[in-house]
Formats: sequence, C-alpha cells, structure tokens
Amino acid sequence: MDYTYAPGRNHLFVPGPVNIPEPVLRAMNRNNEDYRSPAVPALTKTLLEDVKKIFKTTTGTPFLFPTTGTGAWESALTNTLSPGDKTISFLIGQFSLLWVDQQKRLGFDVDVVESDWGEGAKLDVLAAKLAADPSHTIKAICIVHNETATGVTNNLAKVRKILDDYRHPALLLVDGVSSICALDFRMDEWGVDVALTGSQKALSLPTGLGIVCASPKALEAAKTAKSYRVFFDWSDYLKFYKIGTYWPYTPSIQLLYGLRAALDLLFEEGLDNVIARHARLGKATRLAVEAWGLKNCTQKEEWVSDTVTAVMVPPYIDSAEIVRRAWKRYNLSLGLGLNKVAGKVFRIGHLGNLNELQLLGCLAGVEMILKDVGYPVKLGSGVAAASAYLQNAIPLIPSRI
Amino acid sequence: MDYTYAPGRNHLFVPGPVNIPEPVLRAMNRNNEDYRSPAVPALTKTLLEDVKKIFKTTTGTPFLFPTTGTGAWESALTNTLSPGDKTISFLIGQFSLLWVDQQKRLGFDVDVVESDWGEGAKLDVLAAKLAADPSHTIKAICIVHNETATGVTNNLAKVRKILDDYRHPALLLVDGVSSICALDFRMDEWGVDVALTGSQKALSLPTGLGIVCASPKALEAAKTAKSYRVFFDWSDYLKFYKIGTYWPYTPSIQLLYGLRAALDLLFEEGLDNVIARHARLGKATRLAVEAWGLKNCTQKEEWVSDTVTAVMVPPYIDSAEIVRRAWKRYNLSLGLGLNKVAGKVFRIGHLGNLNELQLLGCLAGVEMILKDVGYPVKLGSGVAAASAYLQNAIPLIPSRI
Amino acid sequence: MDYTYAPGRNHLFVPGPVNIPEPVLRAMNRNNEDYRSPAVPALTKTLLEDVKKIFKTTTGTPFLFPTTGTGAWESALTNTLSPGDKTISFLIGQFSLLWVDQQKRLGFDVDVVESDWGEGAKLDVLAAKLAADPSHTIKAICIVHNETATGVTNNLAKVRKILDDYRHPALLLVDGVSSICALDFRMDEWGVDVALTGSQKALSLPTGLGIVCASPKALEAAKTAKSYRVFFDWSDYLKFYKIGTYWPYTPSIQLLYGLRAALDLLFEEGLDNVIARHARLGKATRLAVEAWGLKNCTQKEEWVSDTVTAVMVPPYIDSAEIVRRAWKRYNLSLGLGLNKVAGKVFRIGHLGNLNELQLLGCLAGVEMILKDVGYPVKLGSGVAAASAYLQNAIPLIPSRI
Amino acid sequence: MDYTYAPGRNHLFVPGPVNIPEPVLRAMNRNNEDYRSPAVPALTKTLLEDVKKIFKTTTGTPFLFPTTGTGAWESALTNTLSPGDKTISFLIGQFSLLWVDQQKRLGFDVDVVESDWGEGAKLDVLAAKLAADPSHTIKAICIVHNETATGVTNNLAKVRKILDDYRHPALLLVDGVSSICALDFRMDEWGVDVALTGSQKALSLPTGLGIVCASPKALEAAKTAKSYRVFFDWSDYLKFYKIGTYWPYTPSIQLLYGLRAALDLLFEEGLDNVIARHARLGKATRLAVEAWGLKNCTQKEEWVSDTVTAVMVPPYIDSAEIVRRAWKRYNLSLGLGLNKVAGKVFRIGHLGNLNELQLLGCLAGVEMILKDVGYPVKLGSGVAAASAYLQNAIPLIPSRI
Repeated sequence: MDYTYAPGRNHLFVPGPVNIPEPVLRAMNRNNEDYRSPAVPALTKTLLEDVKKIFKTTTGTPFLFPTTGTGAWESALTNTLSPGDKTISFLIGQFSLLWVDQQKRLGFDVDVVESDWGEGAKLDVLAAKLAADPSHTIKAICIVHNETATGVTNNLAKVRKILDDYRHPALLLVDGVSSICALDFRMDEWGVDVALTGSQKALSLPTGLGIVCASPKALEAAKTAKSYRVFFDWSDYLKFYKIGTYWPYTPSIQLLYGLRAALDLLFEEGLDNVIARHARLGKATRLAVEAWGLKNCTQKEEWVSDTVTAVMVPPYIDSAEIVRRAWKRYNLSLGLGLNKVAGKVFRIGHLGNLNELQLLGCLAGVEMILKDVGYPVKLGSGVAAASAYLQNAIPLIPSRI
Repeated sequence: MDYTYAPGRNHLFVPGPVNIPEPVLRAMNRNNEDYRSPAVPALTKTLLEDVKKIFKTTTGTPFLFPTTGTGAWESALTNTLSPGDKTISFLIGQFSLLWVDQQKRLGFDVDVVESDWGEGAKLDVLAAKLAADPSHTIKAICIVHNETATGVTNNLAKVRKILDDYRHPALLLVDGVSSICALDFRMDEWGVDVALTGSQKALSLPTGLGIVCASPKALEAAKTAKSYRVFFDWSDYLKFYKIGTYWPYTPSIQLLYGLRAALDLLFEEGLDNVIARHARLGKATRLAVEAWGLKNCTQKEEWVSDTVTAVMVPPYIDSAEIVRRAWKRYNLSLGLGLNKVAGKVFRIGHLGNLNELQLLGCLAGVEMILKDVGYPVKLGSGVAAASAYLQNAIPLIPSRI
Repeated sequence: MDYTYAPGRNHLFVPGPVNIPEPVLRAMNRNNEDYRSPAVPALTKTLLEDVKKIFKTTTGTPFLFPTTGTGAWESALTNTLSPGDKTISFLIGQFSLLWVDQQKRLGFDVDVVESDWGEGAKLDVLAAKLAADPSHTIKAICIVHNETATGVTNNLAKVRKILDDYRHPALLLVDGVSSICALDFRMDEWGVDVALTGSQKALSLPTGLGIVCASPKALEAAKTAKSYRVFFDWSDYLKFYKIGTYWPYTPSIQLLYGLRAALDLLFEEGLDNVIARHARLGKATRLAVEAWGLKNCTQKEEWVSDTVTAVMVPPYIDSAEIVRRAWKRYNLSLGLGLNKVAGKVFRIGHLGNLNELQLLGCLAGVEMILKDVGYPVKLGSGVAAASAYLQNAIPLIPSRI
Repeated sequence: MDYTYAPGRNHLFVPGPVNIPEPVLRAMNRNNEDYRSPAVPALTKTLLEDVKKIFKTTTGTPFLFPTTGTGAWESALTNTLSPGDKTISFLIGQFSLLWVDQQKRLGFDVDVVESDWGEGAKLDVLAAKLAADPSHTIKAICIVHNETATGVTNNLAKVRKILDDYRHPALLLVDGVSSICALDFRMDEWGVDVALTGSQKALSLPTGLGIVCASPKALEAAKTAKSYRVFFDWSDYLKFYKIGTYWPYTPSIQLLYGLRAALDLLFEEGLDNVIARHARLGKATRLAVEAWGLKNCTQKEEWVSDTVTAVMVPPYIDSAEIVRRAWKRYNLSLGLGLNKVAGKVFRIGHLGNLNELQLLGCLAGVEMILKDVGYPVKLGSGVAAASAYLQNAIPLIPSRI
C-alpha cells in the first residue's frame, strides 16, 4: 500500500497538506458514529463557537462544509452573488487564477486585476475602480490573503480602508486558505464578509473541511443571491442550526473530532503564539534563501509570506528537478513552481504544526539538493543564517518551563 | 471529547454511517502526504480502476469527489443537464424527496412521480410518461436504487427495460447511496448513465467521498450541459486524468488509503459474497420483525431492502422513543423515522462491514426496548426466528476453513 | 498480515485478552517518547496513585512491570519468599496449577491443596493446616481469586478470616488476574499482602503490564527474602520511586498512556458500576446456560464467577469443536477447555469493556453453534432467558440521561 | 494527558526508545485477539523464522519475551548458567555495569574487567584470563556489543577469535540491545551463544519485547543450568514451539503485528542498507562534533558507535543543562550522561527508523543549544560538516528511482 517507502519521517514541506500532529491523528482514529445522536450536535456546537476564534470574529457565522478549498470558494460566491454580478478579482498567482476561473465559470462578470507573479494585489487599481463606480455596480471584491503559488501576502487592512474611503458597499470575499491560523487575520476588524480556509492547511488536519465564515452582511446578501446552489447552500445549514441538529447531510465524524483536537492545540499554544511561530519560521526561511544567494519570488518585503516561500532558481536550473530530487533522495516534499513560474521556483511550505528544528532539517536538505543540481551553494550557510536568528528568537515552550 | 461515554462497543445500526473495519481504520491512521508526489497518482490509478468493479462497469468513468452523497447528486445532475431540462424523478421517501428538492433548486423542470412511503417507484407511470414523450423532451430519469428512509429497493432492470421498450434516450441517473457494495448493482447491464454512492455507506469508510460513475453517454452529455459547475465539474477531473496527476484539487490522503483498504477487503470477501451476506442480514431482520408481530414499512416483498429495514410500530408507541432509549440504555444506535413516517417507524441499518452475531445482538436489544416502551414482545422471539434461518444459511469463513 | 479476515467485528469472548475500548486504542496510538523527560514521571506518578484504587488499597505500593501475569506471579513470590520457604497453594484449575508449578520451580516448599476442577479452594483444609502450624513455618498462602479455567471465584474475605482466627502471620498472595477491575476486590480490607493482575484482562488493555501491589508487610518481607531477582525486584523500583524518575528500565510509553485512559474510563463509569455490570453479564450468561439445559462447570452457586463461565457439554460433544466452529463460521472467539476439562467445557469470557448487547450477540452465536454440533438447543432460549433478566436490570447510561 | 505539549514533532534522539515508523504504528492500531486461535500461531511462525535474519543466524532459536532488555539479559543468564558459575564480564559504561550488577545478584561469580568509560572492552585481559583457565572454570563471557552510555562498540569477531585461539568452551553472551538491526551483527559467524535485543531500539517498536536468540550450544547448556527461572525459561517456550501454539503465556498481539511490520520494513530496505544508513548517520554526527570543536567520549576510532554518540562538553558546562534546554526550548530529546559521565557528556542517539534530514535538524538544534549554554560554537558548522559528507554519501531511495 505504501508504494514508495523510505526510512525515517517524510519531511513534508509543501504548502499544504501539512503535518498532522499526533493528538489530532489520535482524535480521528475512531469508528463512525450516528450523527443524529445527541453527541454529535453537542460536539458541533463547541466547534462552531470555537472556530470563530480562528477568524477573529464574534459576529460571523461559520459553516463546516465537507469539501475542499475549491468548494469553499464556490460556497462563498454562490451564496452571495447572482449570475452576471460584477466582481473585482485580483490575479497574482496560480490559486487566485483558479479562483478567477471559477468566478467566470459560475457566471459572474469578473473584472480581473492582474499583477506580475511575485507581486501583491494592485490596490491602487482597486481604488481607481471604486472611484469609477459611484452606482455600486461592483458587488464583490475577491482577493486571496496569501497566494500560495508565489508566497505573496496581501494587505487586507488596506483593502478595507480603500472600500471605506469610497464608502463602497461591495462585499469583501477573502481566500484565507494558506493564511488563517498562521497569519494575522481579523475578520471583524477588517470587515471581511466571507472568509474561508481548508482543513489541510494551517489547521493541520486531513483534507475534507472547507471552513467558511460569513458576516451578517454576507448572510443578508445570501437571501437574494440567485446563484443555483444546494450542497453549498448556507440556508440549509442555517435551518439545521436553528433546530439544533446542525447537519443538513452527513458530516465526517472523524474530522469533527479532529477539528476539536486541532482547535484545542491551537488555543493551548495561543493563537498569537501560533502566528509568532509562523513569523519566525518565515523569517528564518527567507534568511536562508538570502544566504544561499537566491531570490525570493516575492518582489517586495511588504508582501513576504510567513507560510510559504517561493524560491527562484537561476535560469540554468530546472526547479522541478529540485523537487523531484528532494523526494527521491532525501524524503523531502517541496512544492513545485506552478504555471507561469513552473521550472523557475520551488516552494517551501512552512505552515501548520511545525517547529524550528523541522524547518532546519528541511533547509539542510535544500542545501544539499542545490549542490546536487549544480548550484554553488555553501553547505551550512542557510542553516547558519536561520539558526543565528532563531537561536535568539525561539521562546521557551510554555508547558515545559 | 467523548461526551457520552458508555462501556463496550457502540452498536451502530443506523443505515449509515456504518462501522469501519479495523484494517480500514489502520490504513487511514497516517500523516498527510504531498498529493503531487508520484505516490498519490500511482495509488489513485489503482483506485479508479478498481472502483469500477463495485459499479459493475467496464465502460464507466469514476470520479472520487471530496464530498458527501448530496454533493454526488449535484455532480450527477449539473454535469449532464442544463437549467430548464425536464427530468422524471421518483419520490418514495425522505432521500428521494431531498434529491427532488435539489433538482428543483438547481433549475430543472422536475416531473415528480410520488408513491406512498413504503412503496416502490411507480414504474407504470414512467412507461406512460415515456409513451407520451415521442419528442424526447424528457432528458433524465432520476431514481434511488434503495430508499434509505423506508427500506424500499427499486427494480432498476425494469426501469431500463421500460426505457428500452420506448427507445427513449433519457439519461438514467441512479442514487446508489445505500445500495452499491451491498445490493446487486449492474451499471453496464442496466444501462445506468450516472451512478453514485457515498463512502460512509456500504463501503464502510468515513464520510467524505462522493463516488460518481459516468457512462460514455453521460460523458457525452456533459459536453453540452449548461449547468454552472466548478467544484463538481467532471471536465476538470478528466483533464487531470489525462495528464496523469488525477486531482484538480487536494484529495484526502487518508480516504484514498482507506478506500484502497476497503476495496481490498471487499474483493477478498468477494463482491458476490458481500451481496449474499447482505441478503442474509436483511432476511434475518425481516424474520425477526415478523416474529415480533410488527410490520415492515415496505409494502411488498418485491421492494424489500437488504440494507435497511424500517419497522412500523403500533400507533400507541412513538418510534422516536425507541431510538432514544436504544441510545440511552443499550448503547445501540437505530435510525429515526423521517418526515412522513416520523414517530411511526424506526430503522435498522444492516449494511456495510457487519456480521450475523452483531445483528443478533442488535435484534436482542430491540426486543428489550420494545418491552421497555410497552409493546408486548416475547423476548427472544426475533432472535430465534433470525437464528433459525441464519444457522442454516451462514457459510464457513473462507479464510478459516 | 491479517491471515484470517472475516467481515464484521470479531466477537472476542475469551477470558482475556479482552476488547480494548476505542479511547484506549486512541491513547496508545503514538510514537515513543524519552522516558527520562519530565513528562513520563509526571504521568507515572498519577498512574501509581490511581492504580491503587482498583486494588482498593491506600497503604499498598503498586509496581507496573513490563511483563504478563506469569511475570507478576514471579514478582509476588520472589520478592517475599526465600527458596525452601513453605507455602500453601490452592490448585483448583489450570491457572492455579501453573502458579503452583512456578512456585515449585522457584524452589519453594509448596503444600498443594487440590480441589476437583469446578470447585473452590478447600478453605477448611487451610484452617486445619494453620491450626497445625503453631510455629508459623507456613510463610505464604497462595490463592487465585478467580480461576479462569473453571469460572470459580474464591472467597478471599473468608481466607482472611481464617488467617485472623489463627493469628497466623503467613503472607496472603492473591492472583487477581481475572478478577481485579471486574469483581469486588478489597486489598486492604481483606489483608491481601500481594495482589496482582495483567493489563489484558479487566483493564482492557493490550498484554504487557503485570500490575503488582504490595502491602507494607510484603514490602517488609522483601527486605529479607532471598530469592534471586533483578528484573522483578521491587527494590529497584522503590529506589527510582524515591528519586522521582520511577523507572529502573524502559517502560512502554504506549501502555502508560493506555493505562491512563483505561483508568479514566473505569473511574468515569465508577468502579462499583463496573463491578455491577460484570455481575449482570455473569448472571445473564448463567441464565442462558441454564436455559440451554447445560451445566456450569462451577459446582456451587457460592463460587460462580462474574468474569468467565465454563460451560459443560454432554459427553457426546467435543467442546473444542464448539470453539473451532465459533471461530470458523461465526467470527466468535470462545475459550477452550484446558487440561482436565479439555473437550468437556468451553468458556465464555465476559469481562472487561463489554456491554449487554455484545454478550447477547455472543449467546445467540453459541446457540447456533450448539445446534451445529448436534446439541438439541432451542434457538433463542438462552437469549430470552438472559434478556428477561437484563431488560429489568440494565441501568440508563449515566452520561446520556 | 499530554502534559507537555509543544508544536511540531518531538525530535527524538535518545538512544532508545526511538521513533516508530507510521506503518508500524498502523499495524499495532488494533483490538486484542484470541492468541489461541489459528491466526496468532501462524503469525508467530513467520516472526520466529524472520527474526533470525536480524541476528544473522540460521541455527539459533529465537524467543520473543514480553519484557525489556533487562529481562532479556536475565533470560540469557538464567537459562545457561547455574548459581556460582564463573563469568567474565566487561564493564565499560552504565549498561554493562547494570548487567554486571544483575549477574552478581543472580548469584554468579563475576570476574569484572573494567575499562575507563569511553574505552572498549579490554580484550587482552580476556586472552590472559582464558590462558590462565585451562580447566575451563569460566563458563561464560558477557559483553555488550555497543555500550549505549558511552557510544563504544566492541569487536565481537575478535572476542570469538580469542576464544577460539584458546579453544575455550565458555559461552559467549552478547547484549546487542543498541546494535542489532543497526550495526553489523553476525551471530553464527562470530559464534555468539546468546544474543539479545529490545524492541524499542533499532527495531523501532514500542518497548515490550525482549528478543533473545540462543545457539544450539546455549540450548544444550539450558538443559543443565540450575538457575531458578519460570517466566524467562526457554524450556516452556520450546514445549509450546513443539506443539505449534508457540506461547506459554499471553503475548502482546499488538507487538506481534508491529514486529511483523517492522521486519517487513527492514527487509524492504535491506538489512545491509539499514546498516549502511546507520554508518552514514554515525559518521555525519561525528563530523559535526568535530566541527564544533568537541570530543567524542569514545576514545579510539576503532570503538566508535554508529548508533549513539556521547559528546563531551567542556568542564564549565553541565551537559544535563544541554539536555534540559533541548527539551524545554527546542522539543528535542537528547540522552543524559549517566553515572561516571553524568554532567560531562550528552548523547545523540541515531538509531532506528531515522533519516539524514532528521539528523541534520537535530544537529542544527544542538548547535543552538551549545550557544545557549555559552559554548562558542559557530552556528551551521556541524551541519555543514555533516552535509558535506552526506551530500556525497546518500543513495537514491530505491523505491523512488
């Protein structure tokens, strides 16, 4: 069944799916249950209450869809918009591209604002477009918080500010797939109307939950949105929330218990500490890249991502060969360059339930691979740069002091 | 985390989710993996090949959606039909009702053929409607193979025969959620165009896979179907099948390995033996119900279901109290009566990875509960009737001879 | 790897190893840990404190040996006695016989008091022997609380009374392997000097922990006992208890966490409720045996065991064939008759994490097997007799009221 | 239950217990079974046959005791020797010291040959003692293959040669606890009479199996050895081997399936490849230590150990503080210095199911800790030295080529 056994741990550094912590694996190691017994609603109630904390919302309404991020996108769009509605959507990499594609195929009138890959969303263009829309034909702004393909983090506070500056009522729909639970995310403060993530990202669960959180304004929009939807329809959920059984159809019992465990671990660590840990891991990675003499795909410091780093390789190297070699020789899983940056970047995911020594093992591996493929790296240089920073920055583990 | 601990095993006899066998739990007890490494496509390839066997198709194309049965329905409909298309849909219980509801909400022109709950689909009406449709305005026939709410199994061979008799080109879309891997199901022989099931039913996995299988005719229809779809779109899958990476978005690694184990167990037992085992379990249950002096919700022998039995209770008993008491006193999970039969029936699911002694333990429990709620059952009578049959019918376990 | 797959659950009714509850399986599903880190001693401390409760002792000192019941016996003997020491040992079945054999091989002067198999220990003989020993040459009384081979429970309170009546200082060493956590056991009240059990019995863990509890008097005896011992030596443990690291050699991390979970479940259910549940299961089994027209191997009501029932079969039936058939046809694991009762009895273990419907499934299976092998049983009769009792006796599940 | 949670993986680098690979965790994730059913003997048979391969013996007889290494020692001694028998035992560190202590407490006349800690066994002394023993009063030579406390590997081939040179019939008893399955070990070729290991070492299982392998000569010695023994007695096992049920008392079902999986992984990798991998890990570690400017506790190259490296720290540093800090700040588990080298060395275990990037993560961690405690290490230096070697030495993973 394991076609490709190798000794020791797989070093999983793709930007999702990420490592599942043992307590979560344990929590999911269970038989099915009747989801109509009193036990599952009781569990679900705590999940819906607690999951709001990872969105930093008190007014939002969460939905735990048995789906992936792609499905969560679809839920965000079809519940709030009607075919033909005009959206502004920022295309800055492969995942925002796929979301744009979905928006178009679902029948919306998408105004795509494209950036060079490696750059953030062009927020000045947003301002211009809002300025030119006094009649409020723009119904929604669609933006990824963190573009997983290029390691670019957009400034959502600024998006909100622009919308506010123009008093524009467009909904703000945010893909937080590779940000929520890892980067600073503030649904209420930033006036996000729909935010969404997937379980296999910073929550460190298996794939299978598309977690969508809707603001009161989004729920209001759902009442008139005319997009066809059933599986992804919020209204079915809301009906079952009201009667207290919570599920319009069968949830994954295992993922519910897994989510409970994952949230417990996040809260035990402290959400702010989790975000600080990601900041450390991100910075350490960037310091290593710099020490290797390589460039980050992210073009400006303001956009750097603390969950994924896309590393650019010199033209004479095929980044796909780095990824292949990582897997074939070092049991290390790195992310490929996608689409426009295929062959040009490889990606190091550093999100989820991960610590510094794991990352340093990965960086040591990357160094050897770089040498393998003919890049003149000084072995140990990246690890040294990262360690020099981390040795000062890592806090004591609170439970062990 | 386990809010409702009780000693011993939970006796899980809802008609899904069902018991997961230990080898499947073991197979799923694993960390995430990079689904873009060569290992996951290699695994997926075997799954797609082997999953066809449970549909008894060689010409069909399977899709493993990260979703539930409700999503699988949506995939079947939106890939083959366009808004406004006319469908004939048989409403014979709660789950066919929900499917009808979905069909309407997705914009189809649904001609609902309703039966009394406990009766099968009115196939004579189908004949009449086809006869009256020489211009082939009817685009699809939607039917559940087994209605989980009432324990009614429809005769799909007959549906095919009627379609053939009228040489009607309508697509035949079949909900096999509580039938496939348990009841005799023959996609190719019966000319089913889309068949679907969910992982938490007879496959005995957790919830999370909506397995859809499309005939060549269905794939052809998908080329022109105008329903909006992205997450559920077959064409994205087909594109990735072609390039050999298989997944347009992230699958659940755990469910893939689980499906591999589940299929291995099914094939080790032998699909025909699996079906024969369900036939034994179904008959034993019905004999017990008869011995208790109770009626089966299923009105005629031709419709009886070997995966779920809906037991009617006398008017002076609330069937929901039986279900509550089963859970509160005996750690037994039974199915509620739904909608029109709420309070009137309770359901015993007998599908999936289950054996005879498990069922007899359940039947012994039901007898005690019936007594608890004031029904004058003779304790031991149902078990005796079931045992008398089973003691003759159970084969030796092949691996232990 | 599973050589003998059969669909559905294995019905495990041998009198050990018994079913492991899911929360315990989950707790043990973990990587190894450094047992010299602060975490493992902290865990061990709670275990040593809490495990005393299952012995009902406040003054005893427990030891968690990485061994089996056989090793626990050896620990009890070698720490308290010197070669040549005289012991009185009751032989009433296969397991007391094995213990007697061990005592002899370890060099003690064993005075064996044998009963017919199916009878309890001859306590009148004990009285006579103590009366004849004014100089206290008898150093220890060795007795099994529950003989697993015959389903006989000895009266330990009476043993204590006899010792007290004669003011005899002999140590009282008790094998509680198939009693502790299932039958009423009172180490302090009954003046037991060494009591022991194994993890795979009523604690419902895997095999691997031999749990030994020593009274202050036993610890005192250990100071002068001259039997060679190292692995089983209490003094090494006591040394490490004192310095707070607890382990003279490597423990099984998994079993420690498993024991924690097992104790938590026992305490959540309530030890008295656990004992009452075993009393129900034992009585229900005996009622079924009676209804089948078969005899219990246990000769008198005063000795009946609530953890295991040895059922006698008519001379024309080989009980081993019942056990083979149970496994080959019904996926049911029953206990063989051992030694003197080989071929004459089969055993139903009803201990550990087990509930009533599980037992009824087993009893229904036994009925079918009896018919298979030619015994004229009335199918359903045993289940009916057991159910009639249980339907009155089963309490509501506290966590679900 | 997890008192000391920290994000990410625990980096387990104590020299046992070691990391358990996922396929082994999966194999052990199971309910108990009846060990008297045909399934368990069938499994055991394959284990006994295959476990011989890890000892490189075809003539030896293996025993799988439910115990630890300490118990395995006791089994080796008590089955082959009688109280008063003279043994030569080499004391070179804490674990050989504990074995010597056991030998004394079990009543043998132990002639201890002590080395400075960090040196190997004094084999010239052995030669002298054999030369001085023409009447063969020496019954056994007891030696650890690899002393886990100091990282010293003894030359067993040389021991055999000396015995042969003097044609001395003394038994050769070898503690292979931290060598077998990791270092080159050849029971038959080296004429080892009893070899033993523990499951939690290079086999990468949980603690709980003491695996002992006896040569025909050792089995012969067992016939007359007069040491008291029952639990550890080979003769009980041999009796059950003969009748084909294999177990004189209850084994751990979980560990048997775990051992099956562990052996399968070892054979899939290839035992020679496993040994080569340990050689790489050992050398890489030593190169790092050298780069840090620190000394290996092992005094000569001929004794260096490929499973554990004891690193000496300067006098102004307390090595225990390094271990504490590793755990408290970096979630890294290192081995303490024991007894004579307490405070002076810390140990890096690099045995079992481990790969190079895991080790490099550990080494990067050690560098930071060294800096933490005031040692002037150049960050990255050890990783660079290790990587420079590994980047040339690591082979492609065979299953992924």
